[in-house]
Amino acid sequence: MAVYTEIDDEQLEALLAQYDIGQLLSYKGIAEGVENSNFMLVTDRGSYFLTLYERRVNPADLPYFLGLMQHLAAHGLPCPTPIAGRDGEALREVAGRPSAIISFLNGVSQKRPSAKHCHGVGAALAQLHLAGQDFKGHRPNALSLTGWKSLVEACGERASKVRAGLEKEIAREWDSLSAAWPPAPQAGQASPLPAGVIHADLFPDNVLFLGDEVSGLIDFYFACNDYLAYDIAIMLNAWCFEADGAFNVTKGRAFVAGYESVRKLTDGEVFTLPLFCRGAALRFLLTRLYDWLNQVPGALVRPKDPLEYWQKLNFHRQVLGPSAYGIER
Amino acid sequence: MAVYTEIDDEQLEALLAQYDIGQLLSYKGIAEGVENSNFMLVTDRGSYFLTLYERRVNPADLPYFLGLMQHLAAHGLPCPTPIAGRDGEALREVAGRPSAIISFLNGVSQKRPSAKHCHGVGAALAQLHLAGQDFKGHRPNALSLTGWKSLVEACGERASKVRAGLEKEIAREWDSLSAAWPPAPQAGQASPLPAGVIHADLFPDNVLFLGDEVSGLIDFYFACNDYLAYDIAIMLNAWCFEADGAFNVTKGRAFVAGYESVRKLTDGEVFTLPLFCRGAALRFLLTRLYDWLNQVPGALVRPKDPLEYWQKLNFHRQVLGPSAYGIER
Repeated sequence: MAVYTEIDDEQLEALLAQYDIGQLLSYKGIAEGVENSNFMLVTDRGSYFLTLYERRVNPADLPYFLGLMQHLAAHGLPCPTPIAGRDGEALREVAGRPSAIISFLNGVSQKRPSAKHCHGVGAALAQLHLAGQDFKGHRPNALSLTGWKSLVEACGERASKVRAGLEKEIAREWDSLSAAWPPAPQAGQASPLPAGVIHADLFPDNVLFLGDEVSGLIDFYFACNDYLAYDIAIMLNAWCFEADGAFNVTKGRAFVAGYESVRKLTDGEVFTLPLFCRGAALRFLLTRLYDWLNQVPGALVRPKDPLEYWQKLNFHRQVLGPSAYGIER
Repeated sequence: MAVYTEIDDEQLEALLAQYDIGQLLSYKGIAEGVENSNFMLVTDRGSYFLTLYERRVNPADLPYFLGLMQHLAAHGLPCPTPIAGRDGEALREVAGRPSAIISFLNGVSQKRPSAKHCHGVGAALAQLHLAGQDFKGHRPNALSLTGWKSLVEACGERASKVRAGLEKEIAREWDSLSAAWPPAPQAGQASPLPAGVIHADLFPDNVLFLGDEVSGLIDFYFACNDYLAYDIAIMLNAWCFEADGAFNVTKGRAFVAGYESVRKLTDGEVFTLPLFCRGAALRFLLTRLYDWLNQVPGALVRPKDPLEYWQKLNFHRQVLGPSAYGIER
């Protein structure tokens, strides 16, 4: 929620000279994005976003992320398009940080999405999955089983400072999940379930709406190759729980109906959802727990409550089948 | 440098229903403004700023600030115009905070202004002073002699933690200044020097430029009635020192020449400048020192270095006359 790296006038001027996007009229640091520094640029041609990638983004992954956005936008998905400079390159360096200018999308994210919003974003996710099918890049999901294990170990016994017994509960959960989890999909190889590009972080603050219509999917910096149904599981967690912790079946049903209006789920995917929902809940529990336990004094970001995902995880643990999410087969 | 108060979708929708500014296309929290929460709103009619006034602004002062901006904009000054709602009111409440929507101004602030920028902003300040002459409101300067005294006492001996001996130096400086400082101008009374509305905080981050031309003066939340030359003194401090602490006479000369291209300074004003420059330096030294000594752990704002103004104060203390600032009489 902050700008981490300031750019001075000369740096900005030198950067813009490398693009053909018109005369600068205004630029403002934007108070969003936990990971990166974002600036809104207004020129006489239009509005743009300038992102400076901070330490959490591996520079080696940027060609994948930017290439993916270019690919998806070219396939008609409403996502930011990286703007190439005069040299044809979208990725360059400003103030010692990798950076890119991307197109600005209109729309407003929904802090309390309705069932109608869930339907719309379900359809948009399916479009993303279909459009990603012929994308050539491959990036393994760094936040799947192996990554979770590292986080479990990094949190260690301090987990139980957040909630008594949490360390053991998490370790046990990881063991259960790892016994049942399908092997990570490999580039160019057959996989037990449909796999491809997933967004992996399509929370409500990463989806823009104009009225009830999706106008933008943003923040592709966790995108990777994994099971498509795992992306659905992340979103059932992020979109379909109420503030009091209850799962809203109407929203779950609307989300999946929206998805299936574009791409039909296989039976295998449907019946793997309870497992994937547990995994997704553990993933966000672990990253939030890690951030909670490793707060930097004076940091600009307030960490999110890890226990919200502990509660969600416990919901999924008692789910007997996909009907709990509003899916009938 | 942050958004302190978040507004949710319903609050924003309810607010916008009170205005006739078109359909919302986008809103973003802006990472600027140490005092308030700012959001940029884009509608199908144009761009606007929504400001939520936080604890440092006295709500009782808001009619003065908003009325002044309306007055100055009506007199052709490039400053934000408060937008009246359907009920004719510009000031209302959102999320428990007083708030206003103001027009958005194009332009980019200069982190390292040139002499040409100094000339332009000098002329703009004089326009502000002239346009303010028939403004009916009156607000005493809370950050003049009496206010400084409160800050001196609030910092107390902790001042010397920042620099050995600083407490005594500051107390001595306040004594010297208070012996020479003219009495605060009173509404409707003759004053020893030209007085009127001053901006009182026209630092480079509060002035927007398009190229070398001033396109906007912003952030009127320290504006008050005081001696016009004191505003000039604030800006000689804020615009005409180099990063290494040296006063740049070329910039001082350009700034005053710009000012005098619109409004001629009286001899009394010119010869009071060294005193006012010392006072202005002490004012920013004290507020920065206070913020430095009262940092809130986990606060979103990094305090500015108070000693920058200690160095400036010491420059002014050895000034023998206005020629040190590039002003010949």
